[in-house]
Amino acid sequence: MKKELLIVKVGGNVIDSEENLFSFLKKFSAIKGHKILIHGGGKLATDLSNALGIEAKMVDGKRITDAETLKVVVMVYSGINKTVTAELNALDTEATGVCGAGLNLLPAKKREKGDIDYGFAGDILLDKIPVEKWDMLLEQGICPVVAPLTADATGQLLNTNADTIASCIAQALSKLYSVKLIYCFEKDGVLKNPIDETSVIEHIEPEQYVILKEQGVISKGMIPKLDNAWNALRSGVDKVIIGNAFHIDKLTASEHKTGTLLSLQ
Amino acid sequence: MKKELLIVKVGGNVIDSEENLFSFLKKFSAIKGHKILIHGGGKLATDLSNALGIEAKMVDGKRITDAETLKVVVMVYSGINKTVTAELNALDTEATGVCGAGLNLLPAKKREKGDIDYGFAGDILLDKIPVEKWDMLLEQGICPVVAPLTADATGQLLNTNADTIASCIAQALSKLYSVKLIYCFEKDGVLKNPIDETSVIEHIEPEQYVILKEQGVISKGMIPKLDNAWNALRSGVDKVIIGNAFHIDKLTASEHKTGTLLSLQ
Repeated sequence: MKKELLIVKVGGNVIDSEENLFSFLKKFSAIKGHKILIHGGGKLATDLSNALGIEAKMVDGKRITDAETLKVVVMVYSGINKTVTAELNALDTEATGVCGAGLNLLPAKKREKGDIDYGFAGDILLDKIPVEKWDMLLEQGICPVVAPLTADATGQLLNTNADTIASCIAQALSKLYSVKLIYCFEKDGVLKNPIDETSVIEHIEPEQYVILKEQGVISKGMIPKLDNAWNALRSGVDKVIIGNAFHIDKLTASEHKTGTLLSLQ
Repeated sequence: MKKELLIVKVGGNVIDSEENLFSFLKKFSAIKGHKILIHGGGKLATDLSNALGIEAKMVDGKRITDAETLKVVVMVYSGINKTVTAELNALDTEATGVCGAGLNLLPAKKREKGDIDYGFAGDILLDKIPVEKWDMLLEQGICPVVAPLTADATGQLLNTNADTIASCIAQALSKLYSVKLIYCFEKDGVLKNPIDETSVIEHIEPEQYVILKEQGVISKGMIPKLDNAWNALRSGVDKVIIGNAFHIDKLTASEHKTGTLLSLQ
């Protein structure tokens, strides 16, 4: 029987406020067992860009990372990473901040220029993720806290979507672990009606997903999130749930009663 | 016989330029054996403070870290940390970025207000440094890259002088290791005449140090650096050398022929 592993990606407004972040981390730290936390930080990066007079350029929700923007996201994401790590350690979760750069945990390559030049954006080389190194950290009772940065073979840091990082780590580690992947943010799940917080869709399968996209119910940033989720499930990840970060305790319970469960059938 | 350990603090202009940094890291990565790298980054922090319109306040070379300044130094130092880590991994040194926060590696407390309120400045609790955790990382062939940040028991990140961090780690690990501590920057060592780069003092003992301070030969930022060095030597560190980062290969050779050697007698 495989060991169990919880992988949580936290994003959205949860990261932007110290109170929200601490409230989430307090619940996260109380969860027992092997766990990995991946965080975003896009809004804070945009704030710092603005303060420095660097225009934040986005295409379809993806950031164009020119050299100046890379400096900003490296600082912001790394800073959040240290802050989260410090708070978790104070909450008795032995945590260490990592990114793709540390121990080459997430080998990546710079995205090639297509119609759009995303600049210093990194695509993870899934087959090269060193599963044994992640396992070594987890086996020592360490909770890796992952910033959305990767590095290529030359040591160039690259901006990489946190949802994708979570999916890739989940896929790679599903060789050794039974993985539950949770995407959490400030909403209760995938909503039927974006302005009605109670309209959570409890369960989505791929066929229904296609229809929901056509209907425009699922749109924008939720599309890559769900695509990452399907990739994860197709590559052996046990369970993917999308839900509210402040209910992380309920989302991780064996019989979760909140959030949107994704499954292939 | 104790295992050997090299601890290098790199600072000064070496950090401020990508070319200089890479040139140093290339030589550092080629050094064999257990090693730890501590970096500063004060000048870049001052640059970002200025760009954001936050006045950098210094007293006797020490930064006053108010809440806004803390945000800046956390971002800047953490960003440098990820950059250095990524480059070292690309140079085949298995490195992981850490700070006092990760794994509680450098337990600290907020400095109490005296005549001067240093704000979010952290003083390391030397006796609480978890020697076994550092040893565990080193024994796995990992080179920890340390940002000049610590955290208190509540998870509050604190700004801590990189020279002091290097000295504290060296002292703590001297229980298990024979430690060589190198402070390196853009100069060739402690200079008799600050504008004459060839006037390196080859060897300083504590008695001579007192005289050199009285004569004003050793002043400003060099005083806390040397005080950290004496503390290290008195607590069991084998050797302390101050020298040029670009000659790190020569400084670490068993018969070093460059830099200033400090010894108690």
